[in-house]
Amino acid sequence: MAYERASIRRMQGYLPGKQPVSSDTIKLNTNENPYPPAAAVLEALHAITPEQLRRYPEPLAEEFRAVAAELHAIDPSQIVAVNGGDELLRLAITTFVEPGAPIGVLSPSYSLYPVLAAVHDSPVISVPAADDFAVPAQFAARMNEAGVNLSLLVNPHAPSGHLTSRAQLSELASTLDGVLLIDEAYVDFVDPALAHDTLPLLREHDNVLLLRTLSKGYSLAGLRFGYGLGRSSLIAPLLGKTRDSYNVDAIAQRLATAAIRDQASARLTWQRVRDERARLCAALRGLGFSMPETQTNFVLAAVPPQAGPAAELQRRLEARGILVRFFAEPRLENALRISIGTPQQNERLLQTLAELLSSR
Amino acid sequence: MAYERASIRRMQGYLPGKQPVSSDTIKLNTNENPYPPAAAVLEALHAITPEQLRRYPEPLAEEFRAVAAELHAIDPSQIVAVNGGDELLRLAITTFVEPGAPIGVLSPSYSLYPVLAAVHDSPVISVPAADDFAVPAQFAARMNEAGVNLSLLVNPHAPSGHLTSRAQLSELASTLDGVLLIDEAYVDFVDPALAHDTLPLLREHDNVLLLRTLSKGYSLAGLRFGYGLGRSSLIAPLLGKTRDSYNVDAIAQRLATAAIRDQASARLTWQRVRDERARLCAALRGLGFSMPETQTNFVLAAVPPQAGPAAELQRRLEARGILVRFFAEPRLENALRISIGTPQQNERLLQTLAELLSSR
Repeated sequence: MAYERASIRRMQGYLPGKQPVSSDTIKLNTNENPYPPAAAVLEALHAITPEQLRRYPEPLAEEFRAVAAELHAIDPSQIVAVNGGDELLRLAITTFVEPGAPIGVLSPSYSLYPVLAAVHDSPVISVPAADDFAVPAQFAARMNEAGVNLSLLVNPHAPSGHLTSRAQLSELASTLDGVLLIDEAYVDFVDPALAHDTLPLLREHDNVLLLRTLSKGYSLAGLRFGYGLGRSSLIAPLLGKTRDSYNVDAIAQRLATAAIRDQASARLTWQRVRDERARLCAALRGLGFSMPETQTNFVLAAVPPQAGPAAELQRRLEARGILVRFFAEPRLENALRISIGTPQQNERLLQTLAELLSSR
Repeated sequence: MAYERASIRRMQGYLPGKQPVSSDTIKLNTNENPYPPAAAVLEALHAITPEQLRRYPEPLAEEFRAVAAELHAIDPSQIVAVNGGDELLRLAITTFVEPGAPIGVLSPSYSLYPVLAAVHDSPVISVPAADDFAVPAQFAARMNEAGVNLSLLVNPHAPSGHLTSRAQLSELASTLDGVLLIDEAYVDFVDPALAHDTLPLLREHDNVLLLRTLSKGYSLAGLRFGYGLGRSSLIAPLLGKTRDSYNVDAIAQRLATAAIRDQASARLTWQRVRDERARLCAALRGLGFSMPETQTNFVLAAVPPQAGPAAELQRRLEARGILVRFFAEPRLENALRISIGTPQQNERLLQTLAELLSSR
């Protein structure tokens, strides 16, 4: 007999990007930072004591939240620590969306959003992105019409890399009746020359929830650590009611704290990724690929006609030990999403692509 | 403006036991194992590489599940790894209970259950435990009448320590229309002479979900790691649909695997806890406390009349640096729940209690 709810029985689960076992594989499919975490993080790991493992962790991650509050010049009550950014997405749905009520997204977007909506029995109200993957003008009005109380917007956008400006986000937040969760998983890679800073949105709006993760910017995807930022009134129910009471473990709290304390190390990796991003994009264009301008650590590269179908190119790359991501979705089925690797990894990708394109 | 759902606004959050900062404090309030984790766990911690932190973890915790499957002589598809046992409780609710549908519990019980039910808008169908805290005969019939599709039963029972036998559990599972989640957070501390083994229930019943945690038995409360066991048909939706896709981090997976591989070390701590349990119970009885027989690493000690109210005794102990747990609830408000500590900790508790009782 099946005991799960009918809607769970019907839904499809999320399909994570492949995690290869071989260390020879060049892994450009899940947007990890190609550089290792800061030395201070490893020092924090080695300083963990048996006593810290034996005891329950600090339930509210007080130390991490104090350090993050200082970094962002806000109050600790405006921060909730989570077991990876995905947990904040789920918590926001649990907290702000009545079961079965609609959830707003831009399309295409992070493929986990519809899965989380399905678990909550929620229809997805989806507005197609503009040609350049920008948020279209009617987005907020459409959400309000549909009675959406939570809109999920990844910015910079995935999988295109397009950046929506703070001014545009502020306009959106003003218009929306519900909560605007801005999933900033990739915000650390935005060009500093753009002076993109969303923290002032929290002073202006009581309905903006920012999602940050240490997975990409701090090279800690293995750690599962993220945090949410918002007005205290928005954060309080997540912090005190809907969150699992010990959601982030003692090791993760200490390593995450060490990671955000060492801004200099993290910023160095961001700059190196941006440098390689510019070089990789230029080289891919030289091979006939085209792509929107990206402010993330990945690029959505439209495959040139002579390369054949994108799905096939992805499999041919995998056969040569290079993983990139393909999405069988409208507007994405002719493209590959490629994470920015180290110079050596990007070079091998480019050489392999050149070979595959010339061998057809 | 408040954006959270009305039911979230109304509900009270879970109140975790106090986590003291001072290392002098004797902490007998949250049922940690008093002994450190196995040396192999620390070795696994020190073997973590920067590359393992940088990359996403194995999403399905394959290695842990393989080792756990061998330990329990079942198939890996019958196991789901979770970020602490609390996550399995939440996942079971998400998966098996329609939002707003009732959830069954024995009363009193783990104080988190009603909180998780409230988040899910679910009424709690509560059946009072018998005088000895056993599950009463009418439990299953009552749940079926109320249309309960998920019953949560902690066994050995918290906060009394009472053990329900496998035969009784099997009878319950046969009668229940829905899923029976047996929360075995404390099962490692059951006297081996009782030969209590619930794994055969999985062969007999398709509706039994066992919850195990490494928090207590393996001295890893700081790590947040637990797992669920059941028929593959029961586990599949948790594993593939409702679970956050990377719910257990790379470090936790490795440390947990090392911990369950070293059964000898863990079993040694269980025996030491049982030895101290017998000694502590006898000494508490000598001071006038009374308690049900406990198969856990804690004891529910009814405070003798000459000691004054239990709440006051808890505060007086805290003032002397000893934390124990008090629940302001029917049937519990005259008792203290005391975790079994090391011989030295238990001795200081007993001496302090003797002083406090004689000074009134």
